[in-house]
Amino acid sequence: MLEKVKTPKDVKNLNFNELKILCEDVRKRMIDVVSRTGGHIAPSLGTVELTVSLLKVFDPLKTRIVWDVGHQSYAYKILTDRNERFETLRQYGGISGFNNIFESKYDAFGVGHSSTSISAALGIYIGKELQNMTEKVVAIIGDGAMSAGEAFEGLNNIGGMNKNVIIILNDNKMSISKNVGAMHHYLANILTGKRYNKIKKEVWDAVQKFPAFVRNRLVKNVRRLEESILNMIIPNSLFEDLGFKYIGPIDGHNIQVLTKILSNVKKNVEVPCLVHIVTKKGKGFKFSEKDATKFHGISPFNDETGKKKGTSSAKSYSQVFGKTMMDIVKKDEKVVAITAAMAPGTGLDKYAKKFPDKFFDVGIAEQHAVTFAAGLAIEGIKPFVAIYSTFLQRAYDQIIHDVALQKLPVRFALDRGGLVGEDGPTHHGAFDLSYLRCIPNMTIMAPKDGNEFEKMLKFMQIFQDGPIAIRYPRGNVDNFPELSANEITYGKSELVFSGEKTAIITIGSTFKIGYELHKMLKNKSSQPFLINARFVKPIDSEMLQLLSEKKVEKIITIENNSKKGGFGSGILEKVNELGLKFNIKIFGIPDNFITYGETDKLYNSIGLNAKDIFNTLTKK
Amino acid sequence: MLEKVKTPKDVKNLNFNELKILCEDVRKRMIDVVSRTGGHIAPSLGTVELTVSLLKVFDPLKTRIVWDVGHQSYAYKILTDRNERFETLRQYGGISGFNNIFESKYDAFGVGHSSTSISAALGIYIGKELQNMTEKVVAIIGDGAMSAGEAFEGLNNIGGMNKNVIIILNDNKMSISKNVGAMHHYLANILTGKRYNKIKKEVWDAVQKFPAFVRNRLVKNVRRLEESILNMIIPNSLFEDLGFKYIGPIDGHNIQVLTKILSNVKKNVEVPCLVHIVTKKGKGFKFSEKDATKFHGISPFNDETGKKKGTSSAKSYSQVFGKTMMDIVKKDEKVVAITAAMAPGTGLDKYAKKFPDKFFDVGIAEQHAVTFAAGLAIEGIKPFVAIYSTFLQRAYDQIIHDVALQKLPVRFALDRGGLVGEDGPTHHGAFDLSYLRCIPNMTIMAPKDGNEFEKMLKFMQIFQDGPIAIRYPRGNVDNFPELSANEITYGKSELVFSGEKTAIITIGSTFKIGYELHKMLKNKSSQPFLINARFVKPIDSEMLQLLSEKKVEKIITIENNSKKGGFGSGILEKVNELGLKFNIKIFGIPDNFITYGETDKLYNSIGLNAKDIFNTLTKK
Repeated sequence: MLEKVKTPKDVKNLNFNELKILCEDVRKRMIDVVSRTGGHIAPSLGTVELTVSLLKVFDPLKTRIVWDVGHQSYAYKILTDRNERFETLRQYGGISGFNNIFESKYDAFGVGHSSTSISAALGIYIGKELQNMTEKVVAIIGDGAMSAGEAFEGLNNIGGMNKNVIIILNDNKMSISKNVGAMHHYLANILTGKRYNKIKKEVWDAVQKFPAFVRNRLVKNVRRLEESILNMIIPNSLFEDLGFKYIGPIDGHNIQVLTKILSNVKKNVEVPCLVHIVTKKGKGFKFSEKDATKFHGISPFNDETGKKKGTSSAKSYSQVFGKTMMDIVKKDEKVVAITAAMAPGTGLDKYAKKFPDKFFDVGIAEQHAVTFAAGLAIEGIKPFVAIYSTFLQRAYDQIIHDVALQKLPVRFALDRGGLVGEDGPTHHGAFDLSYLRCIPNMTIMAPKDGNEFEKMLKFMQIFQDGPIAIRYPRGNVDNFPELSANEITYGKSELVFSGEKTAIITIGSTFKIGYELHKMLKNKSSQPFLINARFVKPIDSEMLQLLSEKKVEKIITIENNSKKGGFGSGILEKVNELGLKFNIKIFGIPDNFITYGETDKLYNSIGLNAKDIFNTLTKK
Repeated sequence: MLEKVKTPKDVKNLNFNELKILCEDVRKRMIDVVSRTGGHIAPSLGTVELTVSLLKVFDPLKTRIVWDVGHQSYAYKILTDRNERFETLRQYGGISGFNNIFESKYDAFGVGHSSTSISAALGIYIGKELQNMTEKVVAIIGDGAMSAGEAFEGLNNIGGMNKNVIIILNDNKMSISKNVGAMHHYLANILTGKRYNKIKKEVWDAVQKFPAFVRNRLVKNVRRLEESILNMIIPNSLFEDLGFKYIGPIDGHNIQVLTKILSNVKKNVEVPCLVHIVTKKGKGFKFSEKDATKFHGISPFNDETGKKKGTSSAKSYSQVFGKTMMDIVKKDEKVVAITAAMAPGTGLDKYAKKFPDKFFDVGIAEQHAVTFAAGLAIEGIKPFVAIYSTFLQRAYDQIIHDVALQKLPVRFALDRGGLVGEDGPTHHGAFDLSYLRCIPNMTIMAPKDGNEFEKMLKFMQIFQDGPIAIRYPRGNVDNFPELSANEITYGKSELVFSGEKTAIITIGSTFKIGYELHKMLKNKSSQPFLINARFVKPIDSEMLQLLSEKKVEKIITIENNSKKGGFGSGILEKVNELGLKFNIKIFGIPDNFITYGETDKLYNSIGLNAKDIFNTLTKK
């Protein structure tokens, strides 16, 4: 059936039986490809019927469809011109794992981070309206994404402006992992009928106060009264309070119901509308149905056993973080960990189970996470805030205004610093060193390997002199057992090898590149210094002075952050401030967005590896 | 009566008549001082009775009180140990215009930006709970601040965790100016009783369907039923859906009612609780009651006429922005302006009245503002987003993820770049050049004066190659009629004076300093270049090459942004990249938070003026 769908319009001509078969085909295709490429299979398996129904009812080139996050849009990709290229999902030069306006005219808005769809849909709606092309716009947002402030801001604005935007709330009762927050309880109450039942009971109790003979005679009328009241109450939900017509809950896997409702909304609803559908994350694949969290975003797996392929025994930075946090929390009762719907991703899942009182998952709500941490710190608690580098961008003002300005010792564990691979530009942590470095009172570290990361976490635990961050990459730790490592001292770099004339200064996991480069240069009978900077802020002035005294002429800095305002820029500033003279070469991420694909390929594409740096240096 | 209150505890001993007199005294004191110092008089006049009631009921050292924004906490400052110092409000070396943990033990959390109080209060609550000091915490937040996403994130978390935080929603039916959004309509409906009345009518209609004889006999019972139903419905508000007990609406100027309710909440409510009080912004001073927006934040005024003192005829940057936007929108039908509750502040108030269809005030919701603009831009609209430099920090991820990554031509008008004076560190726009400069696809400009600002806005109108920002300071424009100015060309600086050996490169309004410095150096018979950079990104490479060719040895950069990652840092990077050799001196804002006070005093305190730079340069 999938082969019959050459363009999205072909979906319109299929009957319900054919649509069901189409859904099966799409799921098979998805599982087949993602088992080889890896990707967000569970979210996308949950929205197959929704996608088919949307394409049955709407023309996506007229009624723009904005997917939130985009990790649930694989069926949409397959059915909108990208089936042939679907094999290249998330691969270098292939198609993106999220919606992308540069990839297809069917993608209305680029995504990757959550909770932007409502605001974007309103922008698209008004943009059309201003040009006299009144068209409804559809945003599809998960219940997890609804906990983020921006989603509320969007709802509040659409409701206030009374614009004809359709929000489809895709409620699978979970976020990346389990959901938190009052909104989640509220939705769960709708689903379990608690709200309905609570009110029904109260109405019934009230009716019991009537005299018996009246009660009996009024059974029919009371029932009508009850229903009338219930109709008043149920629609008067939180969403109706915000100006939306609420429709739901609806079975999100029933194409007939979905298309009927969507058609009705399309034709008859002339106000903001929220359609609440209920789906099963991971639907239609037994392994992901059983463990949707594992299959939320997964590396290649065996589609017959559900097991991940080639799982290495190496430890990831996230695992080291989770394990070290367990050590730390046992020894220091003031320590707590906070994350924003990233417990498994940041390695905190075991910690969370073992120390539930010292763990706070605030949901997708980075702004709240950081201000909440500031409040904790004011009371003498030691909060570790574990958020991915790019997601922390959501809390930038809070870091400055609530934490740094009050010089509060909030600890930031920035996972996913540097290029992250297949998730691509929305998720590359390419800017954190730049956006954090300009904040007063901030200390910033980056570890060269797993052992140093552990030491830095322990350093951070006892550090009380303002906010402090460790940024570390996605993926496995390096280890350098052949190198002895001294303890972490505030603001001090680590001199790994003394040398002459040239100094290689690396920050964080780019040490590996510097180490290799050092070997390559040594083989060319040059003997450079090799320095592991450890601190991005403050920059180690004494080390720079030492290099000057030792007549070093050339400094090579290596970082996996943007060269604009990053670590190398900090070295330039400090060298300039100290009035020293070096020939400085900065290697890092260039000033453009880097695509998706295997991390190594991406780094090679920007020449951020020992060989390319060696060639650049020796060419001149 | 105010003299009797030596410590906040003294408030507890006053009776209601005395409290009323106290309120009068506090208002007089406030008007007297703020008429001389300037400040946020209207918000603070609205919360006098609330403050007195809070101090009557709670001990603020035990039950921590978190004021949102803090511009409504003058009465609190006066009554908590700061009456004597109140004369120094917002002055250099004096007390802050907002709450500040370094200023008083009574200030639980530092503020300045809005919508952080709920998250901070939860942090403080949990921080105490973890140390077995269970205490309620109070957050006071305005209805305007409720439109921001972070407020929702905080509510969602408190409701979900079922913690004993008391939110006082101070509803004065306005934000800085008039309020927007569905939440605003919702609150207004509660106040006007529309929600109540609508439901009452529907119940009544249902009851009419009963047979007449039953209806008559049931009058009493039906009334009871009706009440029972109403009690179910009214509390089942949006806030109850989010897990809060809702109490209100309550007259926020009635001390007896307020203290009764707060005492009851203190003693008997063991769940999250939202107390909805209604106040009048500017209450008790006839001029601010009449025009609360004018008196929201005001410079010194005559307390007998309500007129601002010493209003100059000079134009502010904000006025130039508003006026130019009116010119632009008339000529280009694709242009729209967006702001986030900053229409008067950004100079867009007249524009908004004249072009309501081309104006969008999204409320305090910067994240939404930016993503909304991205949606508009995708449809070919040309959005100008006018947000203060520090408030744009709230939308940092949206600038990167929704705008820059999609290379959408969203225009940013960043008002309040540089030091802003009396509002102090929460409001100083000290970081924007750093946090924007690392974003790929971004163009950043800053004008030397009012004329150039106008030209840049017109350049920005036709620029379609990705996001573009103009950052400009608070206050009046400079003008340099004696200097001829050429047109704006992408990436090109303006060579104002040719010279030799030394080049002064200024960005934006620091041109004034460079111009003066140029004169001072000329008097010392040196003849430096003077360059107005215009573009922070891209940096003008050709100009740097030219300076090198002209044998310039020394470059002096002057900016009113942090030296970390700012304009000077960009010059260092570019010079290094081009392999040029200069002795570079960077002047800008040092790497610490700058206090409040008159802007000139602040710049003098960090040596950012022509005389100090001259002395620094000629000392060596």
